[in-house]
Amino acid sequence: MGRWEPNSRGRLQEAALVLFAERGFDQTTAAEIAARAGLTERTFFRHFADKREVLFGGAGLLEERILAGVIGAPPTAGPLEAMSQGLDSAAGMLGETRRDLACHRQAVIAANPELRERELAKLAHYAAAITTALRDRGVNEQQANLAAETGMTVLRLAMQRWATGTDKRELAAIMRDCIADLRALATSG
Amino acid sequence: MGRWEPNSRGRLQEAALVLFAERGFDQTTAAEIAARAGLTERTFFRHFADKREVLFGGAGLLEERILAGVIGAPPTAGPLEAMSQGLDSAAGMLGETRRDLACHRQAVIAANPELRERELAKLAHYAAAITTALRDRGVNEQQANLAAETGMTVLRLAMQRWATGTDKRELAAIMRDCIADLRALATSG
Repeated sequence: MGRWEPNSRGRLQEAALVLFAERGFDQTTAAEIAARAGLTERTFFRHFADKREVLFGGAGLLEERILAGVIGAPPTAGPLEAMSQGLDSAAGMLGETRRDLACHRQAVIAANPELRERELAKLAHYAAAITTALRDRGVNEQQANLAAETGMTVLRLAMQRWATGTDKRELAAIMRDCIADLRALATSG
Repeated sequence: MGRWEPNSRGRLQEAALVLFAERGFDQTTAAEIAARAGLTERTFFRHFADKREVLFGGAGLLEERILAGVIGAPPTAGPLEAMSQGLDSAAGMLGETRRDLACHRQAVIAANPELRERELAKLAHYAAAITTALRDRGVNEQQANLAAETGMTVLRLAMQRWATGTDKRELAAIMRDCIADLRALATSG
C-alpha cells in the first residue's frame, strides 16, 4: 500500500457500503466500488478477495479479540462475566467503525438472504470457539454453550441498537447494559 | 383425506425426511417422496405446497403454541418465566415427533444453506412475535427482546440435544434444564 493511496482500504470500504446501500449488493461491482473510491480495480483486489470480503473481512480478527477477552478474564470470573469481557474486547474493535457505515452494513446484510446466512454462520462460528474457551476455563459443556450463544445474541442486539442509533451511547456501554438486562431477567422470576 | 389413505400426511413426512437424509434435499423430488410413502404425487400436493413445506409446515401452529404459553402465564410471572411457559407449550407439540425423524430434519437443514436461512428466519419471526406478547404483559422493549431471543436460543439448543439423543430425557425437561442453566449463569458472577 504505497503512500500515493492513503487509507485505500478504508476508502474502498466506505465506497462499497454506500454503493451496496444505494443499489443493492448484487448490483454493485468491484470496478464500481474502486471508481467511487477514486482507485483502480487492481487496488480493490489487492485489499479484498471479492466484494463479500468488504463485509466480512474483519471476522477473523474479531474472533481473536473476543477470545482474548474471554481467556484473559480473571480466574474467579464466572462464564457470563468471562463472556462479557470478550464482548468488551469486541466492542473496542467494532466501536471504531463509523456508526453510519455500520448501519449501512447491517441494512445490506438484512436485505440479502445469502449474506444473512453468512453473518449468522459467522456468529455460530464465534459461539463454537467461545464454548471451547469457556470449557478450558472449567465451565461444563452445557453452560459454556449457553453462555456463548447468549453472548452472540447480546452482540447482535447491541450492534443493532448502536448502528441504528436507537441507543446513542458507546457500543461497549450498550453491551454491558444488555448483560445487566440478562442478569435482571434471570433473577426476576 | 379419505380413509383409503390412513395417516397419509405422516407417511409422506417420514418418507421425505428419510429420503432427504439419504440423498440430500435438492436431489429428492415430490414424486419420489410420494412413491416411497406408497402414495401418489397428487396426494403429496394435497398435503404440502412443495417439499420445503414438509420441513416448515408446522411453523404457524408452533408459533401459536408458544404465544399461547407466554400469554397464558400467570400475571405474576416475570419475562423469563413467561418465556419458559411458552417453551413448555412448544415442547408439548414438538415432543410428539419421533426423535429419529427430528434428527433427520436437523441434519437436512444443517446441510443446506437455504434451509438454514429459512430455519433461522423462522426463529427470528417467533422472537418478534414473543417480544410483542411480552410487551403486552408490561415488559419493557429491551428486556422483552432479550428474553424472546434468549428463549429461541434455548429452543434451538434443547431441540439439538433432544433430537441427537445427547440428552435422553423428554424435550420439556431439557428445555426447563436450559432455563435453569441460564438462571444459574446469570447469578454466577
